[in-house]
Parts: sequence; structure tokens; C-alpha cells
Amino acid sequence: MLEITSVQNPLIKEIVKLHQKKYREEFIIVEGKKALQGAKEAGLEIKYVFSCDDTLLSEYKNGAYLVNEKVMEKISTTESAPNIMGVVKKPEYKIQNFKNFKKIILLDSIKDSGNLGTIIRTAAAFNIDGIMLFGDCTDEFSPKTIRSAAGNIFKVPIVHAPLEQLKEFKKTHKMLTTVVNSKNSTASLRAETPVIIMFGSEAQGLCKELLTLSDISYTIPMKEGVESLNLAVSVGIILYEMYKNEG
Amino acid sequence: MLEITSVQNPLIKEIVKLHQKKYREEFIIVEGKKALQGAKEAGLEIKYVFSCDDTLLSEYKNGAYLVNEKVMEKISTTESAPNIMGVVKKPEYKIQNFKNFKKIILLDSIKDSGNLGTIIRTAAAFNIDGIMLFGDCTDEFSPKTIRSAAGNIFKVPIVHAPLEQLKEFKKTHKMLTTVVNSKNSTASLRAETPVIIMFGSEAQGLCKELLTLSDISYTIPMKEGVESLNLAVSVGIILYEMYKNEG
Repeated sequence: MLEITSVQNPLIKEIVKLHQKKYREEFIIVEGKKALQGAKEAGLEIKYVFSCDDTLLSEYKNGAYLVNEKVMEKISTTESAPNIMGVVKKPEYKIQNFKNFKKIILLDSIKDSGNLGTIIRTAAAFNIDGIMLFGDCTDEFSPKTIRSAAGNIFKVPIVHAPLEQLKEFKKTHKMLTTVVNSKNSTASLRAETPVIIMFGSEAQGLCKELLTLSDISYTIPMKEGVESLNLAVSVGIILYEMYKNEG
Repeated sequence: MLEITSVQNPLIKEIVKLHQKKYREEFIIVEGKKALQGAKEAGLEIKYVFSCDDTLLSEYKNGAYLVNEKVMEKISTTESAPNIMGVVKKPEYKIQNFKNFKKIILLDSIKDSGNLGTIIRTAAAFNIDGIMLFGDCTDEFSPKTIRSAAGNIFKVPIVHAPLEQLKEFKKTHKMLTTVVNSKNSTASLRAETPVIIMFGSEAQGLCKELLTLSDISYTIPMKEGVESLNLAVSVGIILYEMYKNEG
């Protein structure tokens, strides 16, 4: 097994570059055992693996490096370094494959990496086939997004969807929007599939172009005078409601 | 109106101390217009208010300070400073008042300030009367918690609840726990009130002492093989389900 003990090692310097989005065109950092296991299960190329514990490295044949704590701290993106981390080929999903998907969620201009990761985790839990990102979104493969997805980052395909493509999807998929307010709610959500459920950003809501594509709207009931719900919580409620009523 | 232009001003130094929990025994930092408005509505003493914009300060009579951007950056806890922020007397809620509350949630050893704030926001939206914290929890009045509560921080009373007190509450309140798994769910949640809904921490789940107090358990259904749900999402689903079925 190869060993690296210096933070000045050229490979370590390369890995640290991946902390920045602009260097993550081809490879991404995946921290923690569960997320790395997820990459393996998804059949993604794992180029390098780093750990201070050689027993954790034993299942990885190529590119496994035993490092000391200083090196591990240097390459990890968290305050307390994970037990194991890797460099993984970024998955490439095709929007064409989404045509056959029954349940898709679309996120418009989502900025918060923690929220995005939490939504990916929730989507995996409630059997969503794919996630579409629209507009200017945070990086779906940032270390924080991957961390918040808690091992589920590679379980749901994610694509960027331009407006023209969405107009095509509208021919085959119902487009659903959701509103949170204090009036009466829709009794229960048993959405016709195939469906695309669209969520606006916390700050701006859903943009006009997407609003005009909407076929149906579902309302989450809540108490008057409260400042809406957190986006990831809204998504959780809608996906739960659909999953529960699938029968 | 008073003006402060130097970050060396002794009052500014006092305010900066409030970034640390140990100095927040009596007063807390409240950032943003909505949260500050919430403090006012809750009748809390607002000791100081700071802004670079004198029109925002006009509604505050005493302790209003016009400051420059450097000072505002110094006293705020976020990367981009809020338009207005204040120093507010920390609310003191009494657990005795919880005796008459119909819907209470309890959080065991919650560590993530963002999650706690999101849960407070959700509790306000779904008409929860009070929140109990159990064990070693993150500060409910940290700037990050207040920010994540999005203006709702003072809408729901929060107390720390020792085990002995909870045993007393068990005489009057049903104690509900929740499980997330892939088996069949409880059909729909129409909890008998008064009720205390208990949630464990993300890392540890609910501790044994609290598990033994449980009267009923509600199951959130989900797909097999997924790493559970984010805590704030679980809480959102349960509170939504109860609120919706209140009738």
C-alpha cells in the first residue's frame, strides 16, 4: 500500500484543488464510508482513496493511500476529517433517460448546498426517479451537498434542464407546483404519473417561465402569519404525501 | 440618533462578545428585520438596535445606533451583514406553563443549529404550543438557530426539560415516538392530545430513558436501503400529518 506523509506531496496539492468547484469538471471529492460505498455501488470510477486506517483501505485495490492525520486534515473539507475519503469520477446523467421516469422533482435556482443534499436524501427515501436543476443552482457535487445527502448522493440521477427541454417534457409529464399557505389544503396528494414536481427557491419562489408550465397545484396547509416553510421541509412533506398515497 | 463609526468603540466590543454562547446569559443577538419584529411582538426588551440605514432605525426610540458598514460587519455573525440587527433580552419560558399545552415536541440532544432553527420554524407553521429540549442540545438562541427559524424564533416557547419533569408530564400527556422505515406505515396520524412528540438526535436516535416513556409510535414509510431522513424533514412530515388531520 502506498503512503503519503507530507502535505507538500504533489498529489495532495491536486486533491486540495478539488475543494474548488472550478476544478471539479471531471472528478469530485467523496467523504465518508457510506458515500464512498455509494459511488462503488453506482459503478463510478474511484481514482484515489485516502485514510489513516489501513483496514479501511483494504477493499480498494488501486489508488489507495495510507496518510497521516495532517494530510487527511489538509485534503478533507470538514473541521473534523472523515475516516476515509476518495476522488471519484463525476457521474454523467442524460436528460433523455428522464423521459421514462415517473416521478421527477425540479428545483429552481437552489442556492443552499445543505438544502440540496437534504432534498437528494429525501428523494431517495421516497422513490423519486430523478432530479432536475433549473437556472443558477449550487453545485450538486459540492462536498457539503454530498455530506448532507448522507450516503444517497449517487442514488438519484441529477441533470440540468433547460426551458426548451422542459416544454418537451410537458407533453408527456404533468407539471405540479406547490404552495404553502393558511387556506384549505388539497385533501390528499395522489398525483397522476408521470409527473414533474416543481419547487421554487426559498428567496424567489418559482420563476414565471416555470409557473406558466404548471398543470396542477398542491397546497400545504399551515397556520396563519408564519414565514412559510424551509424548502427541504416542504419537499419532504410533498414527497411523503405522494409516497404514502401510492398504495 | 446616536452614531458609532469605530469598531474600537467599547459598546461594539460588548456586542461582539455576544457571538459567544458564554456571554449570552441575559441578552442575545437578533439579526434581520423579521426576527427583530418578532422580538417586538413578543414584548421582549430590545436594548440596542444597529443599522447603516437610519430609516430602518426610526421605529426604535432607545438604544438605536446608526453605524457604518465596517461596524455592521464587525457585530454581525454572517458573511454579508443584515440590514438591521439588535440586542434583545433572552426570553425566559417556564415549564409549568407547558402543563396546559396540547401539542408539544421534544428534541433529544439536538446538535445542529440549522436543524433546530428549521424545526422551530416548522413548529410555528403547524401550531405547536411548545418545544422541550432534552439532554445536551445546541443553544436555541444562537445566531444560526435564530436565522434558520426565519423570523419565528419567538413564536414558540422553548424550555429545557429534565427527566423527572417529563415523568410528571406523562401523567397528563401521551408520549409519542416516531420511526422511519420501509415497513408499513401507520395509516394516518390523528394523535390524541395533549401529546408530547419525541424526536431523537440524527446520530444517536432517542435515548433509552425517553424510549421507555413512549406510549405510541408512528412510522414514516420509506423506500428500503436509504439512510433514514434528515431530522428536520422527519419533524416536518409528522407535524404536517398531525396538523392536516386535526379536522
